[in-house]
Amino acid sequence: MSSAPLVAVVGGGQLARMMAEPAAALGIPLRLLAEAEGVSAAQVIVDQLVGDHTDLADLRAVTAGAAVVTFDHEHVPTDHLRALAADGVAVRPGPDALVHAQDKGVMRERLGALGVPCPRNAIVATRADVEAFGLPCVLKTTRGGYDGKGVWFVRSADDLETVAEPLRVAAETGVRLLAEELVDFRRELSALVVRSPSGQAAAYPVVASTQVDGVCREVVAPAPDLDPDLATQAQQVALTIAGELDVTGVLAVELFETDDGRILVNELAMRPHNTGHWTQDGAVTSQFENHLRAVLDLPLGSPAAREPWTVMVNILGGPSDQVGRLYDGYPHAMARDPHLRVHLYGKDLRPGRKVGHVNAYGDDLDDCLERARHAAAWFRGDLGNESE
Amino acid sequence: MSSAPLVAVVGGGQLARMMAEPAAALGIPLRLLAEAEGVSAAQVIVDQLVGDHTDLADLRAVTAGAAVVTFDHEHVPTDHLRALAADGVAVRPGPDALVHAQDKGVMRERLGALGVPCPRNAIVATRADVEAFGLPCVLKTTRGGYDGKGVWFVRSADDLETVAEPLRVAAETGVRLLAEELVDFRRELSALVVRSPSGQAAAYPVVASTQVDGVCREVVAPAPDLDPDLATQAQQVALTIAGELDVTGVLAVELFETDDGRILVNELAMRPHNTGHWTQDGAVTSQFENHLRAVLDLPLGSPAAREPWTVMVNILGGPSDQVGRLYDGYPHAMARDPHLRVHLYGKDLRPGRKVGHVNAYGDDLDDCLERARHAAAWFRGDLGNESE
Repeated sequence: MSSAPLVAVVGGGQLARMMAEPAAALGIPLRLLAEAEGVSAAQVIVDQLVGDHTDLADLRAVTAGAAVVTFDHEHVPTDHLRALAADGVAVRPGPDALVHAQDKGVMRERLGALGVPCPRNAIVATRADVEAFGLPCVLKTTRGGYDGKGVWFVRSADDLETVAEPLRVAAETGVRLLAEELVDFRRELSALVVRSPSGQAAAYPVVASTQVDGVCREVVAPAPDLDPDLATQAQQVALTIAGELDVTGVLAVELFETDDGRILVNELAMRPHNTGHWTQDGAVTSQFENHLRAVLDLPLGSPAAREPWTVMVNILGGPSDQVGRLYDGYPHAMARDPHLRVHLYGKDLRPGRKVGHVNAYGDDLDDCLERARHAAAWFRGDLGNESE
Repeated sequence: MSSAPLVAVVGGGQLARMMAEPAAALGIPLRLLAEAEGVSAAQVIVDQLVGDHTDLADLRAVTAGAAVVTFDHEHVPTDHLRALAADGVAVRPGPDALVHAQDKGVMRERLGALGVPCPRNAIVATRADVEAFGLPCVLKTTRGGYDGKGVWFVRSADDLETVAEPLRVAAETGVRLLAEELVDFRRELSALVVRSPSGQAAAYPVVASTQVDGVCREVVAPAPDLDPDLATQAQQVALTIAGELDVTGVLAVELFETDDGRILVNELAMRPHNTGHWTQDGAVTSQFENHLRAVLDLPLGSPAAREPWTVMVNILGGPSDQVGRLYDGYPHAMARDPHLRVHLYGKDLRPGRKVGHVNAYGDDLDDCLERARHAAAWFRGDLGNESE
């Protein structure tokens, strides 16, 4: 091969947008399937089609002439992925891996078979199933949940009423529901690894993430005061899953660190992940670059941290935010902290919407936290506003 | 202002291409005037026109609705820049600054008036003028030279014959020729600064550059064993020039460090510069990001180095190179050095053409030099080839 191969990317969100930066640096051409004109990634990828990721014809159009297809999200139907593979396009991650990030029931069954530590779990169909599983627990749709949607907490018998409707809808529509024990956890961790088709793998330092209402707010790299054995164990779990499931590209394994010092797998994502955004400024090779290298089966870049601490804080629209005022935040945030790294997604500020993130790195964790939190709050216009 | 303003960029080379990476991260929309379809920057900037930078109508088309126009090169005619400014577009750098990067005669006159140390120089029109100036000297066209073109060395009376033709052509076409003393220099340095319209300025560490046939090959940041007073003096010279000439954006001041420990200004460039490419991986804020921040009059990011040493080596096509074999270099270069940072311009490999660069950073200068040189040689297919 004499020139860099074309990589098709399905989905026009910020993850595809952030792949475009290392693609430009590495001279790798991208072709985007965007869900609409002008979406986040469509602002920065020249070669683009507007279409539907559930439409095989659109998927075939974006992959025509491409060596590889990869993804901004996990919502492409498995049958379509198999059809693309049959067309001769390398689908990375492949359908047999991706199903574990699409279906929590399949994921739990497989991880259980692999002996990977998970919260106790079971598929449930009725109120009696939930009672038999035991309270407190959390109910999740096996497919389609994201950022806290499709999740119901059942802490007491009273809460059983609130899941009557999801159970009924699930039974009618054939959606499966998964019950999981409510884990007493100290904090959430994330072990992010990258794996190439030829089996090379790289593990980033394990990070701590803070979630609010199921949405990632803050990441600290590396996870402070994490037992080194537990960190190694988390990386080994992620590498095992990546290898056993034949994942190509980024695999993010979200974990609970329990009060009694164990780790349990919470969720899997097979794409660049919010808990890896710190790598853009805090690691030798960003998750976005390594995802591209991996799906092209190029040697991976070092996942090592460049700094003692890197803190990532998401910029989310607050309840009172006005559309489009984001740029007002630039002068102060940039003037206050010339070391701040800003990443915005070309999205208007709207309540609850992730529109960007900031990274702050340095020798002092408290300083990094303060700088990143201040800047994120300033961008979203929330300083002096108790709503956050 | 509620959303980020549009920045028009004239010229579709690698400098515009590399502006696109921080523009995406900062959520700043770019619109490109490209000299042809598919050129380096046109591969990565969605909003683009193909046109001629010497055609005012094309310049007006690319700047329509833009807050600011900036440049990949210094070849836009001054009168057109004045017309755009009269249209209400902020031209950064402005025509009165840019002329000093376009015309070496104007530059020498102005720097002389400012008391900035320069090689002895004079405008010459005849062989007698050159003899009166004194040999050895170098003759340069005041306008249009680039990468060693438009330059003649007159080391002895014999060489006077070789400049008879340039003198005759210059006289006929009205081109001015500048004679400069041939400086005995230890090495070449570059002092790169960024300045915003409101006067904020930031100076990057002074670097050493190696030129072959007038083309930059290698940069070491910071310049090894540079006297701290001389480094400060170089930065002060660059900041003085930026301020006095009202430069906005990046100003690169190429300097000779003389055998007797002085610095003399060689050339000026008012755009991101090859001697600043190391900042992409070796500084807190890259020259490309700071150029964008400056032309938008946003607060500048820190120019501090992140590592003890960063080495940049250009990837140039060698005499025997075949078009399009660049991708062959990826697997080995990436596998050998997982810390290597690769920057390619989407250009085919052709003899003498700059198609990319690599950055290597670390604690040990010799190691960085070896890694970067090896990778650059590998990409250009020159390993074991004595032509380099």
